[in-house]
Amino acid sequence: MPTIEILGLIAAALTTSAFIPQVYKAWKYKSTKDISMTMYLVFLVGIILWLFYGIAIESLSVAVANGVTIVLALAIIIAKIRYK
Amino acid sequence: MPTIEILGLIAAALTTSAFIPQVYKAWKYKSTKDISMTMYLVFLVGIILWLFYGIAIESLSVAVANGVTIVLALAIIIAKIRYK
Repeated sequence: MPTIEILGLIAAALTTSAFIPQVYKAWKYKSTKDISMTMYLVFLVGIILWLFYGIAIESLSVAVANGVTIVLALAIIIAKIRYK
Repeated sequence: MPTIEILGLIAAALTTSAFIPQVYKAWKYKSTKDISMTMYLVFLVGIILWLFYGIAIESLSVAVANGVTIVLALAIIIAKIRYK
């Protein structure tokens, strides 16, 4: 694997795993008032497009990162709907 | 510009601009209780690495998107510090 792809995978691991504490916080405290629903809806559409982009340019980092982030963003959107 | 780079730029525009409503909401309502600081700190380190990755693979979409997102993430982190 080229060195640059290792950098990409570390970046991917960070920007994807970053959403885990937000998912945890939203579901644990059942409070999402301060979280912007608009942000997560626009973000979700964006990362779906990033997933396609990553597949198209054959960037493993971009594709995997966005695939997982889609799941985490959905978990935040569902929390936002449940705990208004 | 290749068609795929146009897809990348649309994806970039969406995932970057997605943070604008969150910045607006945090600064307008001066309330950030439900926002995870851990998320934004890990995310910030990640997008700094993505910026280097984008420059290295010569992906305009990845580089520009992450450069702007760094500024927006910092605005949320500063709001989180000011309005605990």
